[in-house]
Amino acid sequence: MENFNYHNPVHVLFGKGTIAGIGKVIPRGFKVMLTYGGGSIKQNGVHEQVTRALRDHEVVEFGGIEPNPCLETLTLAVERARRENIGFLLAVGGGSVIDGTKYIAAASCFRGADPWDIVAKGARVDAALPLAAVLTLPATGSEMNCNSVITRRATREKLSFSSRHVFPRFSVLDPETTYSLPRHQVANGVIDAFVHVMEQYYTSRHGDEIQDRFSEGILKTLVELGPRLVDEEPEYQSRATFTWAATVALNGLIGCGVPQDWATHHIGHELTAFHGLDHGVTLAIVLPGVMQVTAGSRRGKLLQYAERVWGIDPARPDAAGLAIERTERFFQRLGVKTRLSDHGIGAETIDRVVHRFRERGVYALGGLDDVNVDNARETLATRL
Amino acid sequence: MENFNYHNPVHVLFGKGTIAGIGKVIPRGFKVMLTYGGGSIKQNGVHEQVTRALRDHEVVEFGGIEPNPCLETLTLAVERARRENIGFLLAVGGGSVIDGTKYIAAASCFRGADPWDIVAKGARVDAALPLAAVLTLPATGSEMNCNSVITRRATREKLSFSSRHVFPRFSVLDPETTYSLPRHQVANGVIDAFVHVMEQYYTSRHGDEIQDRFSEGILKTLVELGPRLVDEEPEYQSRATFTWAATVALNGLIGCGVPQDWATHHIGHELTAFHGLDHGVTLAIVLPGVMQVTAGSRRGKLLQYAERVWGIDPARPDAAGLAIERTERFFQRLGVKTRLSDHGIGAETIDRVVHRFRERGVYALGGLDDVNVDNARETLATRL
Repeated sequence: MENFNYHNPVHVLFGKGTIAGIGKVIPRGFKVMLTYGGGSIKQNGVHEQVTRALRDHEVVEFGGIEPNPCLETLTLAVERARRENIGFLLAVGGGSVIDGTKYIAAASCFRGADPWDIVAKGARVDAALPLAAVLTLPATGSEMNCNSVITRRATREKLSFSSRHVFPRFSVLDPETTYSLPRHQVANGVIDAFVHVMEQYYTSRHGDEIQDRFSEGILKTLVELGPRLVDEEPEYQSRATFTWAATVALNGLIGCGVPQDWATHHIGHELTAFHGLDHGVTLAIVLPGVMQVTAGSRRGKLLQYAERVWGIDPARPDAAGLAIERTERFFQRLGVKTRLSDHGIGAETIDRVVHRFRERGVYALGGLDDVNVDNARETLATRL
Repeated sequence: MENFNYHNPVHVLFGKGTIAGIGKVIPRGFKVMLTYGGGSIKQNGVHEQVTRALRDHEVVEFGGIEPNPCLETLTLAVERARRENIGFLLAVGGGSVIDGTKYIAAASCFRGADPWDIVAKGARVDAALPLAAVLTLPATGSEMNCNSVITRRATREKLSFSSRHVFPRFSVLDPETTYSLPRHQVANGVIDAFVHVMEQYYTSRHGDEIQDRFSEGILKTLVELGPRLVDEEPEYQSRATFTWAATVALNGLIGCGVPQDWATHHIGHELTAFHGLDHGVTLAIVLPGVMQVTAGSRRGKLLQYAERVWGIDPARPDAAGLAIERTERFFQRLGVKTRLSDHGIGAETIDRVVHRFRERGVYALGGLDDVNVDNARETLATRL
C-alpha cells in the first residue's frame, strides 16, 4: 500500500424527506444562491421542496448551468455572486451543477486577474464561498468530493481542478429525487460510477485487498442493479443503492493508497469537447479500448476483475478478452452505444484528439504510463 | 436503506514514516499531553519518534492507561490536564489509549459535577479538548470514530459514550508500529475488527448491497490475512492491509443506512468486567453463541454470509451451522480459546451476567431484539 492522506469532511444527509431539513444546516444571515441546471427541478418538485425548506433564508436563483458546465455561463454566476454579496451556494442538481458551483465558489474568492487560471493553470485556491449540494442525479460523486470539471466553450477545452476549499459543507441525497430521471441519464450515471471505480481499481497494482474488494463490491452492485434501473419503474431501495454506490465510487475512499489511472476520462473528455457527447457515453466508448491496450501490462488485475466481478474462470485462455467483452456488453445492455461509428465519429476525430495531446506536450494520459500519446490512436481505433 | 447522516472529519495520515510529520499538524502554542499505555512505545521506538516530531512543542506525558481504560486512572489525567492547562491531547497506542484519551478530552471540559455521568448517564458533551492519535494496535477503529468505552474498576462496569467532539483531529497509522506486537494482540485485533463488521452486517436486513459487499470484503480480507498475520514475521503490505481493515471496520461507513446489532459486544463487555478477559477474546467467545440463537431470525443473512464470506453453498441443509463453525474455527486458528470453560468460567458467571442485565432493566441486548435478556442465558450456555 502506498502512503496516503484521507480527509473527507462532507456531511451526508441521506434518505427520503431529507431536503426538508436543509434550512437548519445552512447558517442564517447569509444570502444564498441556489444554482441549478435546465429546470427539471421545477417539474419534479425538488425546487419547491428546496425553496420551502429555505423560506426563512434570503435566496437568489441562478439557473441554466448546462451539462458539462461552461465557463461562459459560470462567469455570469461569479459576477452575480460578487455583486449580490452571496454568502452561501446551494447546488441543486447533478454533477454538472455541483461541479459548476464549485467553480463559482472558488472563482468568487479568487484574487488573481482571471479565475479560469484555477482550472487551466492550476492556480492556487486559497478560499471559496461555502457550498452545499442537493443531489438529483447519481453519477459523478461530486457531492462528496472536492473535484470539479469545467468546459470552456470558446476553446473546446474540458479540464478539472481540485481544492479542499470546495468540499460541500453537506450534501443531501434523497433517492426519490431520481425517480423522474430519463432512462439515458440513469444509464449514464451507472456507467460514470462504474468507470470511476475502474479508474482507481483497474491498474497494474495487486494486493490492496480492502480497496480492491470495496471496488469490486461497487462494480458487482452496479452490474446487478444497472439493467433493473433502466428497465423497471423507479423503486426506493434500488434507487437508494444506486445513489450510494455512485457517491462511494468517488469519495476518495477506494483510491486510498493505490495508484490511479484516469486515462479513460482524459480521452473521453476530448470526445465531449469535440462532439458534445454525454460524459457517460464517452466513458463507455473509451474504457474497452483502454482495457484492450493494457491487457498485457495489467494482465493480473484484468484476470482478478474477470474472476471477481464477472465470475469468469481466470484460467480460461480467453478470460481477459471475455472480461472486456462483458464490460462493453454491460454498457450496451443499459442502452448506450459504445462505438465511435455509432455516433457518426470517424478516424479524423482520432487524429484531432491525438494531435491535441501532442500539442499539450503530455505523454502519459493517465496515472500509469501504459496509456499514452503513442498508443492513444490504437486505443481509439479499436473503438471505431 | 434507512435514512442516515454520515460525517467523519478525521484526517488519516497513513503509511511508513508518517509520525515524523505530526509536529506540523498539531498547532503550536498549546501544551500537549502525550498519553500512552504500559510503556511498549518506549521499547519499540514509537515514543522516540513522537517526541522527536514534537521537539518544538511543550509536551507533558501521562502513561499507564491500561487495557480497558479505567475511570480511576483517567481521572488522574483529567485533574492533571486541568491543572496544567493542557490544550491538545495526543494518544499514542491502541484503542484503549485512544478511548481513554477521548474520555480525558470530554471530561476535562465537562461542567457538571461528575464527568463519569458522560458515560454512565449519557450526560451531554458540549466541548472537548482537541485530540489526535498515533495508532500502534489495529483493532478498535477508535482512531477514526467518536466512540469510547470506559471501565469503572470500583463497580466493574464497562460502558461507552459517543460524541462528535471526540473525533480525533487526525490519526497517524504507520503499519510499521505494529511489528513489535505480540501474537495474541494481533489475533485480538483481527477478531475485534471482524466482530465490528459482524455487528453491522449480521442482522436480519437484506439488499443494502454496497454496505453488505463492503462488509463482506473486510471479512474475507481478515479471513485470508489473519493466519498469516499470527504465523509469519511482520511484513509491510499485510500489516498495512490489517491496519486499514480495522479502521474501515468501524469508521461508520459500513453502518450507514443499515440496522446494527452490538449484542456480542454488550455481552462480551460483561465478561471483561467480571473476569478481565481481553476484549477480543470475549468477542470470539460470544459471537458464535449469538449466531446460534439468531440462526432462525437472521437465516437469510446467515446464508448470505455463509456463501459470500466462506464459499459455502447456501442450498446445503447444514450451511448455517457450517458458517458458525467456520467462524469459531477461524478464531481458534488465530490461537484464541473460544469457550468459557477454556478460561475457567462456568455457569455461575452466566447467572451473574443475566442478573446484571435484569438489574439494569434492559431487554434487547443489541439493536435487534432477537438477542435479549430472555435468551442471554441460552446464548452463553452454548459457549460453556
